Amino acid sequence: MMRPALRRLGAPTAALASSSLSAAAPSSRLLLSRAAAARPLLAQQRQYSFKPSAASTSQPQDIHPGSLTITETKTPGTLSKPEDLVFGRTFSDHMLTIEWNKDDGWTVPQITPYQNLSLDPATCVFHYAFECFEGMKAYKDAQGRVRLFRPDKNMERFNKSAARIALPTFSPTALIELIAKFAKLESRFIPADRGYSLYLRPTMIGTQKTLGVGPPGSALLYVIASPVGPYYPTGFKAISLEATDYAVRAWPGGVGDKKLGANYAPCIVPQREAMSRGFQQNLWLFGEEEYVTEVGTMNFFVALKNKETGAKELVTAPLDGTILEGVTRDSVLALARERLQPEGWTISERKYTMQELATASAEGRLIEAFGAGTAAIVSPVRSISWRGQLVDCGLKDHEESGAVTTRMKNWMEGIQYGEEEHEWSYLCE
Amino acid sequence: MMRPALRRLGAPTAALASSSLSAAAPSSRLLLSRAAAARPLLAQQRQYSFKPSAASTSQPQDIHPGSLTITETKTPGTLSKPEDLVFGRTFSDHMLTIEWNKDDGWTVPQITPYQNLSLDPATCVFHYAFECFEGMKAYKDAQGRVRLFRPDKNMERFNKSAARIALPTFSPTALIELIAKFAKLESRFIPADRGYSLYLRPTMIGTQKTLGVGPPGSALLYVIASPVGPYYPTGFKAISLEATDYAVRAWPGGVGDKKLGANYAPCIVPQREAMSRGFQQNLWLFGEEEYVTEVGTMNFFVALKNKETGAKELVTAPLDGTILEGVTRDSVLALARERLQPEGWTISERKYTMQELATASAEGRLIEAFGAGTAAIVSPVRSISWRGQLVDCGLKDHEESGAVTTRMKNWMEGIQYGEEEHEWSYLCE
Repeated sequence: MMRPALRRLGAPTAALASSSLSAAAPSSRLLLSRAAAARPLLAQQRQYSFKPSAASTSQPQDIHPGSLTITETKTPGTLSKPEDLVFGRTFSDHMLTIEWNKDDGWTVPQITPYQNLSLDPATCVFHYAFECFEGMKAYKDAQGRVRLFRPDKNMERFNKSAARIALPTFSPTALIELIAKFAKLESRFIPADRGYSLYLRPTMIGTQKTLGVGPPGSALLYVIASPVGPYYPTGFKAISLEATDYAVRAWPGGVGDKKLGANYAPCIVPQREAMSRGFQQNLWLFGEEEYVTEVGTMNFFVALKNKETGAKELVTAPLDGTILEGVTRDSVLALARERLQPEGWTISERKYTMQELATASAEGRLIEAFGAGTAAIVSPVRSISWRGQLVDCGLKDHEESGAVTTRMKNWMEGIQYGEEEHEWSYLCE
Repeated sequence: MMRPALRRLGAPTAALASSSLSAAAPSSRLLLSRAAAARPLLAQQRQYSFKPSAASTSQPQDIHPGSLTITETKTPGTLSKPEDLVFGRTFSDHMLTIEWNKDDGWTVPQITPYQNLSLDPATCVFHYAFECFEGMKAYKDAQGRVRLFRPDKNMERFNKSAARIALPTFSPTALIELIAKFAKLESRFIPADRGYSLYLRPTMIGTQKTLGVGPPGSALLYVIASPVGPYYPTGFKAISLEATDYAVRAWPGGVGDKKLGANYAPCIVPQREAMSRGFQQNLWLFGEEEYVTEVGTMNFFVALKNKETGAKELVTAPLDGTILEGVTRDSVLALARERLQPEGWTISERKYTMQELATASAEGRLIEAFGAGTAAIVSPVRSISWRGQLVDCGLKDHEESGAVTTRMKNWMEGIQYGEEEHEWSYLCE
């Protein structure tokens, strides 16, 4: 279905004819072959960059799921063995793409064979990090149906991230409908076993071709899918963290609460440094007070026992702009309020310091700690390196997870795999 | 010249044969045509993403200018009229590319026709902002020779930026040699007139194809070139700034002192807000003290008169991690120390607050203010909006620039265009 606004883009014949103007250097073939071995090269690649154009009188349009076109691949890939799956390395057969430009708004959504993006080297995504993304999963339930988990929360955050860097927003329900169709189309990539899923990566990039620093006049939203296995295939394995204050991930008034590419690259060197000292992740501290914010690329929770009353408290940092608004964080909080609070737990979103944790640990009041995120759901923490001491997080030597951590994982998976009927689970129909 | 490390990449024939597996959707032709109209589509596009590979025993190599291959375009572009040039919108005929991977190090440098980059949608540059860049210019002197300005400073910063986000570093002199060759090859794009130049954009992006968050195993360094006219074609035009505290560009321990893409996208919305109120740029304040850091995408200088002594002081913020280490900033400071200090000026890199500027302005002691950066060299400032007041920066109504600002521009241009013999000017031979 073609909308009038697209018609004037015309002249496809001339454009395709010009593709014969190739002048690849002989030596570039070597480089070409390396990547091509991994993924077939398409002769007619899509170009997503375009020149900034004059303002138009046409009304920008929202995403329109009804106009979706689907072109299925003629060369379906072979499935990896479930046990060989590595996070984010292999991808399904297709991708969902929707282009936007400031004159026309969102154009026709397309599902096409998974393929490279062809972009002018001056495209703003390469220079000014006009990029944001989401992480979500599609699960297969016992009836073989495909389910998403709280896609509305991902769409809400995706829109917030996009708006913060002057990229376009969209109707959340429209994109959920398209993602559901895409996930169903790729359902053969979702192993039926518990713990497996299809990781979905909605991504938005600015595609305007100019080095001028300004709002992108065009963008591409795309969704790719990567089959993933359980984060801990042989059961939980507790990690250890390095409390980090020499590098600062996020700050008030910054963008650390948005899921922007900009928040990730700067964390790699500190992560590598922590790993070189034997710690799997950073625990990001903030300010002279050394507030605990989040861990690596997850939110962070601690279970504490009150010094006076002995009452139990599940604590995580508040949404003050320095932590990501995790969907798993929100889910853990909601489940804790529903299922732990009646058992006498206090559920707190509050500031807390590394000193508070160290003191609680020394006094035997740090019950357990875990990271929370889409990849692992929950990730138990054994210890935190801080100022030369190792703060013990409550696990016994033979344990790899605390009781709350394990219960949370089970509750979450029960909902994600449709074993428990719950409004958070979205059936792809 | 081919190096042994490259040989095993092999199988170019098979790779090219696979390019016939095209399966573009009919409707995607429309989208294709839009971009293709701007830039011819090359049938054999280079793919820069490749799969993470197992570790190799080969020794990573540095950039090797001697192995440069040049493939000149068969369809040279027409030159824009100098008066039509818009910053960063039109590009020269060629581009310089050098690929890196962790096994081989830097591979053969190539100058090829300017062309799109073909990248897997899972490439880390799109997701985690593995990208950094430089801004520099090539100038044509009175003898028609091509000159760079302090390229060693750009290379030093480029390496610092790359290292901060786990991208590879390189020999500064090797890349300068290649950039000089590239600039000479494109010299027809540099108009001979004063104020014109060829803006050079060295860029490095992570090209590894994985959604895993870690150090990229491969990268692409490329340089593109855009002919630019004088920033102020009809003479200086003073700008007005909005002092911004609700959004924070940089933070100690963050990456605001590096030239990363990550620092740019988050500044667009605040810039748009300032513009909506009639101010061309943000003046980024920091902390409760409201320290003045930098302006928009430039460093910031103010000329003040001492309240007691009447002595003149040229002030800019110190390199404390919250401001970019500007090459123009460094040059202005050096010229000021050499040429203003003997006239009685004090040259200061020190913290100063917005309140200090407002008080100086109210007392008639704010002599002038200007931004400093590669694009404009210096950009005079008329006023700063702060807490509902307009802080006057010392220009008379009929003036568009202060005396120091004008002298700086002339000194800098004199060196850049080779009119004054100076070690900062690098002759491309």
